Amino acid sequence: MTLKSVNVCLSPALLPFYELENTTAVVIDIFRASSSMCYGLANGARAIIPVAEIDECLAYKEKGYLLAAERDGRVVDGFDFGNSPFSYTSEKVAGKTVVLTTTNGTRAIQRCKAAKAVVMGSFLNISALTHWLRKQSGNVLLVCAGWKNHMCLEDTVFAGAVVSRLQAGGITLDDAANAALNLYLSARDNLGGFLANASHSKRMKHLHIEADIAFCLQEDLVTAIPVMKRGKLVCLPEYMPAAQ
Amino acid sequence: MTLKSVNVCLSPALLPFYELENTTAVVIDIFRASSSMCYGLANGARAIIPVAEIDECLAYKEKGYLLAAERDGRVVDGFDFGNSPFSYTSEKVAGKTVVLTTTNGTRAIQRCKAAKAVVMGSFLNISALTHWLRKQSGNVLLVCAGWKNHMCLEDTVFAGAVVSRLQAGGITLDDAANAALNLYLSARDNLGGFLANASHSKRMKHLHIEADIAFCLQEDLVTAIPVMKRGKLVCLPEYMPAAQ
Repeated sequence: MTLKSVNVCLSPALLPFYELENTTAVVIDIFRASSSMCYGLANGARAIIPVAEIDECLAYKEKGYLLAAERDGRVVDGFDFGNSPFSYTSEKVAGKTVVLTTTNGTRAIQRCKAAKAVVMGSFLNISALTHWLRKQSGNVLLVCAGWKNHMCLEDTVFAGAVVSRLQAGGITLDDAANAALNLYLSARDNLGGFLANASHSKRMKHLHIEADIAFCLQEDLVTAIPVMKRGKLVCLPEYMPAAQ
Repeated sequence: MTLKSVNVCLSPALLPFYELENTTAVVIDIFRASSSMCYGLANGARAIIPVAEIDECLAYKEKGYLLAAERDGRVVDGFDFGNSPFSYTSEKVAGKTVVLTTTNGTRAIQRCKAAKAVVMGSFLNISALTHWLRKQSGNVLLVCAGWKNHMCLEDTVFAGAVVSRLQAGGITLDDAANAALNLYLSARDNLGGFLANASHSKRMKHLHIEADIAFCLQEDLVTAIPVMKRGKLVCLPEYMPAAQ
């Protein structure tokens, strides 16, 4: 039971070039899908169903699920909410199932289906996540959701933070993991300032959701680790919120 | 005549997500295709014809051209040479046309066809290249050839070196350009040591071509800037070797 490699996929468009067999995939969409998923499950959501398209999301309307849809950073008209973490409080999601489609995050999840496990990572659950990853065997692939198939700084910096915690003798890193690690080491003492240069921060500033950014950069607010089981994200049992 | 943006494409597989119109593309394959192309044209080669496939390369045999083919870091059996810069000395290439196919570099060139200009960049011609780029208008896209569609450290670090020389008020950088810049600033004081971690350096060490690596990391050995003209790489006239 030892890790062999930690690699970083900088864009979902590069996933076809990675081996997913014997690989634990960690999907990263810091602003904001993976952060909100961690927070929502920690706050008692029964499950979060990620779907790629808005139409798929709408198909769940009759079942009494909460419908969440984000495109280009905004809540899609007619939906309960989007991917702001402030929509995933216990008052809103406890005991409920959320169906979510986002610009980048849910699509990245879909493309990781061949992995032996698919979990979600964010600063909000980083210590629990890395604690669990260290107990896995084989390969870890940190999949940055990016922005419309482009790499983005915040997902890459987070991937680097995970690499920094997992690296150890005998574990190989690919060039993208080395680059992400280097980026994180430059950024860690002033994460907010560093990411102010990120294109996504600029997009979000325009949307007046700076509070979301600050929220998503908090470390270890939760221990929940969302894992895909039969098409739904649920808490990994040993890291259930009850254990917090 | 001003530059609007400098962006970095970390893998040829991401090229479909970039706008190539009104864009000057710089193809980067430090170890070793773009370095050898700069060196070969500086040493008097008439032209270098990049082709994607080995069969295409062979089709030129009857014309008396030098045939160069590299796959997985090695010269392909039956070819005059591969992509080691030491094969592109004036003794070997002066007055001749070389037809070259490499694992990553020539394929990246092919995919940039829609750009308004396609040039080759390497540490060997970095000052001439950035001098010329500063005089262009519109957008610059630094295209890292990478390794089999994965990002690689040496191409990204070089892209960051170019970003560091071009950045100025009013020029926008995408997240990949910011990341490459950051990586370069970490690496520049010990480029060889930094790149010793690169997967490609390890591959090349295995191939016993460390001398090629050291050669390709020299700055400003030449002023030649290879530019695509009707399917061939030739020197940009104003940066012809005679002007050196």
